Amino acid sequence: MRDVQSEQDKRNIAIDKVGINSLSWPIQVLDRSNGVQETIAKVSLSVFLPRDYRGTHMSRFIEVLSEQEKQVTFHNMENLLRMLQERLDADEAHVDFDFPYFITKKAPVSGALGRMRYDVRFIAERKGCKFDLITELTAPVQTLCPCSKEISVHGAHNQRAHIKISTRMKTFVWIEELAEIADACASAPVYSILKREDEKAVTEKAYANPRFVEDSVRELAIAMERDDRIMWYSLSVTSHESIHNHDAFASIERSKI
Amino acid sequence: MRDVQSEQDKRNIAIDKVGINSLSWPIQVLDRSNGVQETIAKVSLSVFLPRDYRGTHMSRFIEVLSEQEKQVTFHNMENLLRMLQERLDADEAHVDFDFPYFITKKAPVSGALGRMRYDVRFIAERKGCKFDLITELTAPVQTLCPCSKEISVHGAHNQRAHIKISTRMKTFVWIEELAEIADACASAPVYSILKREDEKAVTEKAYANPRFVEDSVRELAIAMERDDRIMWYSLSVTSHESIHNHDAFASIERSKI
Amino acid sequence: MRDVQSEQDKRNIAIDKVGINSLSWPIQVLDRSNGVQETIAKVSLSVFLPRDYRGTHMSRFIEVLSEQEKQVTFHNMENLLRMLQERLDADEAHVDFDFPYFITKKAPVSGALGRMRYDVRFIAERKGCKFDLITELTAPVQTLCPCSKEISVHGAHNQRAHIKISTRMKTFVWIEELAEIADACASAPVYSILKREDEKAVTEKAYANPRFVEDSVRELAIAMERDDRIMWYSLSVTSHESIHNHDAFASIERSKI
Amino acid sequence: MRDVQSEQDKRNIAIDKVGINSLSWPIQVLDRSNGVQETIAKVSLSVFLPRDYRGTHMSRFIEVLSEQEKQVTFHNMENLLRMLQERLDADEAHVDFDFPYFITKKAPVSGALGRMRYDVRFIAERKGCKFDLITELTAPVQTLCPCSKEISVHGAHNQRAHIKISTRMKTFVWIEELAEIADACASAPVYSILKREDEKAVTEKAYANPRFVEDSVRELAIAMERDDRIMWYSLSVTSHESIHNHDAFASIERSKI
Repeated sequence: MRDVQSEQDKRNIAIDKVGINSLSWPIQVLDRSNGVQETIAKVSLSVFLPRDYRGTHMSRFIEVLSEQEKQVTFHNMENLLRMLQERLDADEAHVDFDFPYFITKKAPVSGALGRMRYDVRFIAERKGCKFDLITELTAPVQTLCPCSKEISVHGAHNQRAHIKISTRMKTFVWIEELAEIADACASAPVYSILKREDEKAVTEKAYANPRFVEDSVRELAIAMERDDRIMWYSLSVTSHESIHNHDAFASIERSKI
Repeated sequence: MRDVQSEQDKRNIAIDKVGINSLSWPIQVLDRSNGVQETIAKVSLSVFLPRDYRGTHMSRFIEVLSEQEKQVTFHNMENLLRMLQERLDADEAHVDFDFPYFITKKAPVSGALGRMRYDVRFIAERKGCKFDLITELTAPVQTLCPCSKEISVHGAHNQRAHIKISTRMKTFVWIEELAEIADACASAPVYSILKREDEKAVTEKAYANPRFVEDSVRELAIAMERDDRIMWYSLSVTSHESIHNHDAFASIERSKI
Repeated sequence: MRDVQSEQDKRNIAIDKVGINSLSWPIQVLDRSNGVQETIAKVSLSVFLPRDYRGTHMSRFIEVLSEQEKQVTFHNMENLLRMLQERLDADEAHVDFDFPYFITKKAPVSGALGRMRYDVRFIAERKGCKFDLITELTAPVQTLCPCSKEISVHGAHNQRAHIKISTRMKTFVWIEELAEIADACASAPVYSILKREDEKAVTEKAYANPRFVEDSVRELAIAMERDDRIMWYSLSVTSHESIHNHDAFASIERSKI
Repeated sequence: MRDVQSEQDKRNIAIDKVGINSLSWPIQVLDRSNGVQETIAKVSLSVFLPRDYRGTHMSRFIEVLSEQEKQVTFHNMENLLRMLQERLDADEAHVDFDFPYFITKKAPVSGALGRMRYDVRFIAERKGCKFDLITELTAPVQTLCPCSKEISVHGAHNQRAHIKISTRMKTFVWIEELAEIADACASAPVYSILKREDEKAVTEKAYANPRFVEDSVRELAIAMERDDRIMWYSLSVTSHESIHNHDAFASIERSKI
């Protein structure tokens, strides 16, 4: 059978990325408490295509993924990229894994345990021998408005918010550590199970700790600057304002090198 | 050219609905303040297909829609269905228009005007000569938790929530009236523009007016029972809990006849 | 602390459903080939609330879910509902689990194995002692248009399509069996890995087997009628038309009793 | 009332972007055939916040948007940014408008007219006096696989695909021109209304014109290089493969200066 993809292309245009995306795939990731955790990723895999090839071989992306051990980690990501480079005969390979990640959290007073969903993303590439990995966490939290608290006789508007922390790490940082940073930089964490005594504690904590999106994103930046394992970060905080039908957001990106 | 769709089908199975959906289409709808409003609907159009026909003629759905006046209203919906019945030679026709709808709201103290998005849906069908229309509004509002207020020294968790009101009407009710009912049954309305004095008023209003999803849905049911123009309703309230990563909801459906 | 939820309500309105939704939760489900499969569900849990109670106790829903064995199956669903009825002191309980489910499929010629994602939903309720369960599969498939094939000199438009099969079962049917029915009623199945010889086979199979959404939904109805384990079904086929920017769909619902 | 936002911040951290997003807002855009077109945008508005301010004034973003003329165009975008800089006392302002845009297309044989939805995005910023604008079009098209055609006795898999063209323009290019480029670089355009004679023409056109995502993205790059009004482009083509449950994609980004 003719191999149309391998034919020469005369258009003289290299392609930055060619591959597959919107692939749903079960993976295992490292879990600080339980060793590993089963989850399901939305996956993108691609390579650089030189100007003289007409196409890439799409089925090989999934073959490489299938042959890999099931675990997708900070540690073996470079190996996956190397295999993609080899099998697709490519100078550059890029992968993106986006998946839910569950952390068991303890309610602040009752100690009730409940699993809570975070979203994590590994965005990695290897150009020649140069490897790059971004680890990203999206965490649900609560923010309470300092202005609303200051000007109102009682109460203050508060809401679910999302903190996104993207990092390039010098040395390994647990997803759980990023989640703890997110919790510490909001007005209060959110939980799966709260008994009445917990609800009281969380309500009062948020009220005692009002934060604009501007405050949260700056607290996150301070935490990133302090952590020597982090060498680059991009941060955003988005509050799903309870008094509006739109969101408030703030973002900061910095390289420490 | 052979008309495959018109051929006889021997499988002896009638099809409840056959047609098109996920069609994006610009329409005009009635607006209490401005006469009409331009918007863009996600549209579904379908007919009943008798057991002896192999297929329907899909292009005719869009032809009928294109030939229609641009307005899609409570008043001309039956006519659209009648045209679908005729052109597709069908006993039954069904349509579904789902679209954003903007209402200009006045901030409670400053009077600042801001447009706010609601979502509206018309779900209609005509079986023989029997016409049925459901009008549905989804409104963003604020809910503040009565339990959190009661047990906490200061503050109370509150959040954006969504109220959905589906109705079968005996006589015409404006979308704006349904939106006012939604606002009145929440802890406080939400707005596009709030100056500081407005933010204070809305914060204090919500704190003075705590409502569980159970409270809101019951207040909605009372409003529906009182309104003689409404003959059937289905209600839901969903709070995007600011202390959790999941939502709380309550729903009620009743026929008044 | 005051228990606001347990207070008496004077509005005299019962609430059909009150509970939580949009909860993300890891579960295990039965897998015909591997015993069990780890997955992540979007969960809704609710109860009926009588007219004289102000509210339900939202945290108990997640407590019941946490205490349950991790498996969510056709077999233990009623037990989960019974526990919800007991713990929330409710006449009726309702649950909805919506999750990705992976089936390893073999490419038709090369035999290459690849996991493919389906979506499955369990919608169950228990009213008093009366238990009801709907099992729903959404399967990606390929449809090829009979009209386009008939009238064109070469080729025929084809596209990814989705088949949804909802059933009430008298006796247990594997998810894998529903997926096989979906594949058999389309123009061709879809796969994760196809080598060149497979791509040829799948292309030719679809061309040899053209099907309108009307054809597919009727083939599905025939399969449902033949299977004595099925007592009620609701079917839909949606083709993401490659020549249009909208979809074509057909649906049938029948009870066999 | 205390103005918490205007207070001094001691954390010494400037914020790249602070503002609002997920705002739904009706706008008018320029339409080559009809002068203007009403549509509804998802809007993001933000500014740079210097290190010494605690927060921005969120309500002013919507005030500026409300006071603007309703039209959002290539021509008045800089003025909107200038107003945001002034009213929020900011060195930099950023806006993002993402909206459906309808183009009336003529079926290739019957000439039947049907409106079809595209998605357009204006991403603009002004840093000091330096203005930058990216115009982005997402167009649905059809792609037919050259490999499948080559190796199969009959037929070839084809599917709906999406072409995304992002550009920085030296001089104005109509959205309609970008849509024509997208259509020309696919296997065939897609339409809202196709009569049987049109369906035959489109089917045969796609079969005569097979294109991998790699082919389409290169054809797009050639068109961009040829057009002197374009000074930078970022292109992607994504095929929703009819034989798979995942997508194939290719992307190229180039600056011509």
